[in-house]
Amino acid sequence: MSKVAIIGVGHVGAQVAADMVLRGTASELVLIDKNDKKALAEYYDLTDQQALTREQTVVTTVPYTQNWDTLADCDVIVVAAGNIELTRQDGADRLAELPNSAQIVRDIVPKIKASGFDGIVINITNPCDVVATYLQQQIGLYTNQVIGTGTTLDTARMKRAVSTFFKCNMADVSGFVLGEHGETQFTAWSTVAVAGVPITHAAESSNIKLEDLKEEARLGGWHIMAGKGFTSNGIGLTATVLTEAVLNDMRQAFPLSAYDAEKQIYIGQVTRIGKKGVLTHVDVKLTPDEQAAFDASAAAIQHNFSLI
Amino acid sequence: MSKVAIIGVGHVGAQVAADMVLRGTASELVLIDKNDKKALAEYYDLTDQQALTREQTVVTTVPYTQNWDTLADCDVIVVAAGNIELTRQDGADRLAELPNSAQIVRDIVPKIKASGFDGIVINITNPCDVVATYLQQQIGLYTNQVIGTGTTLDTARMKRAVSTFFKCNMADVSGFVLGEHGETQFTAWSTVAVAGVPITHAAESSNIKLEDLKEEARLGGWHIMAGKGFTSNGIGLTATVLTEAVLNDMRQAFPLSAYDAEKQIYIGQVTRIGKKGVLTHVDVKLTPDEQAAFDASAAAIQHNFSLI
Amino acid sequence: MSKVAIIGVGHVGAQVAADMVLRGTASELVLIDKNDKKALAEYYDLTDQQALTREQTVVTTVPYTQNWDTLADCDVIVVAAGNIELTRQDGADRLAELPNSAQIVRDIVPKIKASGFDGIVINITNPCDVVATYLQQQIGLYTNQVIGTGTTLDTARMKRAVSTFFKCNMADVSGFVLGEHGETQFTAWSTVAVAGVPITHAAESSNIKLEDLKEEARLGGWHIMAGKGFTSNGIGLTATVLTEAVLNDMRQAFPLSAYDAEKQIYIGQVTRIGKKGVLTHVDVKLTPDEQAAFDASAAAIQHNFSLI
Amino acid sequence: MSKVAIIGVGHVGAQVAADMVLRGTASELVLIDKNDKKALAEYYDLTDQQALTREQTVVTTVPYTQNWDTLADCDVIVVAAGNIELTRQDGADRLAELPNSAQIVRDIVPKIKASGFDGIVINITNPCDVVATYLQQQIGLYTNQVIGTGTTLDTARMKRAVSTFFKCNMADVSGFVLGEHGETQFTAWSTVAVAGVPITHAAESSNIKLEDLKEEARLGGWHIMAGKGFTSNGIGLTATVLTEAVLNDMRQAFPLSAYDAEKQIYIGQVTRIGKKGVLTHVDVKLTPDEQAAFDASAAAIQHNFSLI
Repeated sequence: MSKVAIIGVGHVGAQVAADMVLRGTASELVLIDKNDKKALAEYYDLTDQQALTREQTVVTTVPYTQNWDTLADCDVIVVAAGNIELTRQDGADRLAELPNSAQIVRDIVPKIKASGFDGIVINITNPCDVVATYLQQQIGLYTNQVIGTGTTLDTARMKRAVSTFFKCNMADVSGFVLGEHGETQFTAWSTVAVAGVPITHAAESSNIKLEDLKEEARLGGWHIMAGKGFTSNGIGLTATVLTEAVLNDMRQAFPLSAYDAEKQIYIGQVTRIGKKGVLTHVDVKLTPDEQAAFDASAAAIQHNFSLI
Repeated sequence: MSKVAIIGVGHVGAQVAADMVLRGTASELVLIDKNDKKALAEYYDLTDQQALTREQTVVTTVPYTQNWDTLADCDVIVVAAGNIELTRQDGADRLAELPNSAQIVRDIVPKIKASGFDGIVINITNPCDVVATYLQQQIGLYTNQVIGTGTTLDTARMKRAVSTFFKCNMADVSGFVLGEHGETQFTAWSTVAVAGVPITHAAESSNIKLEDLKEEARLGGWHIMAGKGFTSNGIGLTATVLTEAVLNDMRQAFPLSAYDAEKQIYIGQVTRIGKKGVLTHVDVKLTPDEQAAFDASAAAIQHNFSLI
Repeated sequence: MSKVAIIGVGHVGAQVAADMVLRGTASELVLIDKNDKKALAEYYDLTDQQALTREQTVVTTVPYTQNWDTLADCDVIVVAAGNIELTRQDGADRLAELPNSAQIVRDIVPKIKASGFDGIVINITNPCDVVATYLQQQIGLYTNQVIGTGTTLDTARMKRAVSTFFKCNMADVSGFVLGEHGETQFTAWSTVAVAGVPITHAAESSNIKLEDLKEEARLGGWHIMAGKGFTSNGIGLTATVLTEAVLNDMRQAFPLSAYDAEKQIYIGQVTRIGKKGVLTHVDVKLTPDEQAAFDASAAAIQHNFSLI
Repeated sequence: MSKVAIIGVGHVGAQVAADMVLRGTASELVLIDKNDKKALAEYYDLTDQQALTREQTVVTTVPYTQNWDTLADCDVIVVAAGNIELTRQDGADRLAELPNSAQIVRDIVPKIKASGFDGIVINITNPCDVVATYLQQQIGLYTNQVIGTGTTLDTARMKRAVSTFFKCNMADVSGFVLGEHGETQFTAWSTVAVAGVPITHAAESSNIKLEDLKEEARLGGWHIMAGKGFTSNGIGLTATVLTEAVLNDMRQAFPLSAYDAEKQIYIGQVTRIGKKGVLTHVDVKLTPDEQAAFDASAAAIQHNFSLI
């Protein structure tokens, strides 16, 4: 029996729930939202859906009572609360969500603590790295018990852009986008390969510039925001896959947001996870330029964290 | 190679697309929307997602050009265009969408016909039975080539309500909701059983009234509309499962909306489908009361169809 | 984290393991066989396989040491030990395996008890009902903690035969084969329906005799034994699906072998299971003839049990 | 609608069939074996199994008539005929199967040609590279239409060995085993990485010798043969995954056996496949030592081919 709670079932949290139910990720799934009616709506819609497939997951919600005690025996809590509208305002980026997100952390942490929860927290709420840092600090769990989805989504976008150019399946593309899940992120091109061929080599023979691929990856996210006002599918499956890695002790590495003891903040880095949360950081060899980009990105997160 | 097109990627069409990609329903999926940016956004979000799973489905869209020629070799077209806002207005039901939906049919049918498409159409657009009738009439495909999702979703809701009361898995509940996907639908209780025990028998020993179960099923849909303003997960998987039944020639029966030669409209009835669309109507034995309810529901659809 | 052990990885146990790994049934799977080399071979073959899919299940084995302590924290033990060769001898049926199977029970029960295991046992070893009875008696777990695969497989064969005749998907066929997983089993035709139409009704209009369908179902099993010398796929997925119903607390009903307090043996009956094992027996209404067949089948199992 | 035929349903072919049915790889699956009873047995066992899951694939066989015309409209033929017993004899390796396998090719090719089949052939029969070469030559299809499973299985074994040592998920291991699916194969260590870290680097810091990892990979295969007398799960999923890559036009690269125009034989190399079969060879940069190993392996295959 595995039990997962999703806090916040807006566009993103609802998609995480839908993915988990379709994949049978957990045997029990708890939906919590400050808007009880929204959680109840998702509960009903998801259970309707299950009549058409295998009902492997029991979906529950805690409407009306807001009784958070059910978190006590959860294996994983996915934090998906937030207000994407703040990002969509002209000229705003994920950082615009910070004050609201920080307030959310202050609201939910006492309830999580009161429940006696001692599992793994996976944060989606933006700005992801700063909020993960704040969540871990406030909630008092060990740093290995709290992670953020980080640049796992950005890595997916890089793979999409690269595979589109090379007309290949995304499974053929390996490598990582690292740093902040935000403006200062960078693609560690030295880690990227297409079917085992380093992209620096592949790009040479094909006259594509890496910067163009990066731009194409970035534009994808922009198109999604422009067209639907939020992103849901990519981030939804990101959180789902990380949850499965924890629940099944998969010992798999992702470019997720994890605590950096030296920088004292959370930041996107290659991290292997399992049932205890973070197992180890993978010491990917970066070029000096990439390392500088990582340091700059960490500094940006540190700065943003100081704004709380 | 199987190819599916979804026309209209609002809340419902986008969820159909997400389900199909997660399940690997088709090898190619085409997204079309009158709002090119919306289709493009879903295309990018879904392909981001695929980098985290197996990229088994090639997702494409036809933005900017609105070149519908790609429908020519589609096996299935899912029609999910519509405007749910019209249903949400005070006192409105699915019928409130009729004028807009009829206009949509008039808009898209010439484009579908021009493409030379000769596969199966699965209609979701509400009012489902009336629109399916109109689509078939306008598009000129054989009646077995056009179906509507009909009361398959309502049947799922009935199963949810029944299984909740009997504390059992929804797979233990068999039986059908039939008639209009709308107010005049009815549960054919004589067909409903729980793990092989007729519900009329099971209900007796448990002091539950069938009308209460029906009300609970109906309330579920109401809660979804009230909480999120639309329904997506249940209807999304309904269309997905029907599409898979066609693509894989599954010869499986569903309470979907199919043409009734006697009533000369589409209506929810137990219908077996495969790669040719409708294979046969299943002659479920209804009680006289149920038959009367079916006839009344058919009359309501006929009346609504006359309003176009 | 869910943990399942399979005792005996011959043709059947190996297929159970393969199905569980492909479906991600459990997060840990332990393979045990009296022949260490066989368990080790399956361990290696299954992990090779996992490199080509998602490695969601950790497969382990206890070779050389035969250290059964690992059973202590298992959620489910599948007992698949046995010697199918004994059934294949001329004129023999599943009963021919009894002396050998009883010895297996006497061999493994002390080891299971010594481990402190307190989960659910799912027995496949034939004769299934007698061995389940003996296992429960010897191991001292509550009767709800021990089940046998029983007539779930025979029900699958009935569905295959019926769906073949009616040219429909097996999902359209509901109903149960009950009684002994052996010669005295019977199809409770009063429970069988095709897309909601009672088969007694459907058969009338199609000139098929129910006895012919029963014979066709039986012949299927015979063809399998004749052609490959054992059966594996049907029984493998049977055990897998029952295990999933337990691990995910699915509260789903199956015609499995469960303890009958009145008859004091295990016998195939409609039984709802979840994480505690048996939740309830479903009181399917049998015709007088069917009830007589059930009683006769129970008497046969009682007799066979007395032979141990 | 996709249609796949498996020729030869011994241990390997039967596992390919089981995997394809469980995964819903194709909408129709044809089983052919020189022993009609074996094919019929697998047909019945697999359809029994389907009653317990979604019957998405129609399984058929051509017993008694040996009417191979059904191959005409197949998308993929998997050749899994052979006699593993020949490999198991003392001191024998896969080459011992050559005379028997060559005879199989001569037996089946006229039947395949007579059917008018024009899809993709995936060869498993050993010695894999030689038989693939012979099959392509005899059958007269374009070289891009014929592939062998090649070193995809050996690569899986390498990943298993490496991930076991580094205590990580196999998904964290990238890289290839290349050359002959036989004694002269080699691991292209320059392509192997663990979560993006080149194994040459990772091995340094962990005091593991690459030769030990290679030996561990090799021993796995040996343990399987020693314990069960054949291998089935790893090779079964290999063929299944390659088939899915073709059916869904996945444009994914595998270290499979493909035609080398220069060497004029089939050999394990990184090859991207889709619905047309081979799309492109991926020009993985090998070290001089690896290139020499590849050339030597090619020479071995050439020599063996000359023995037919």
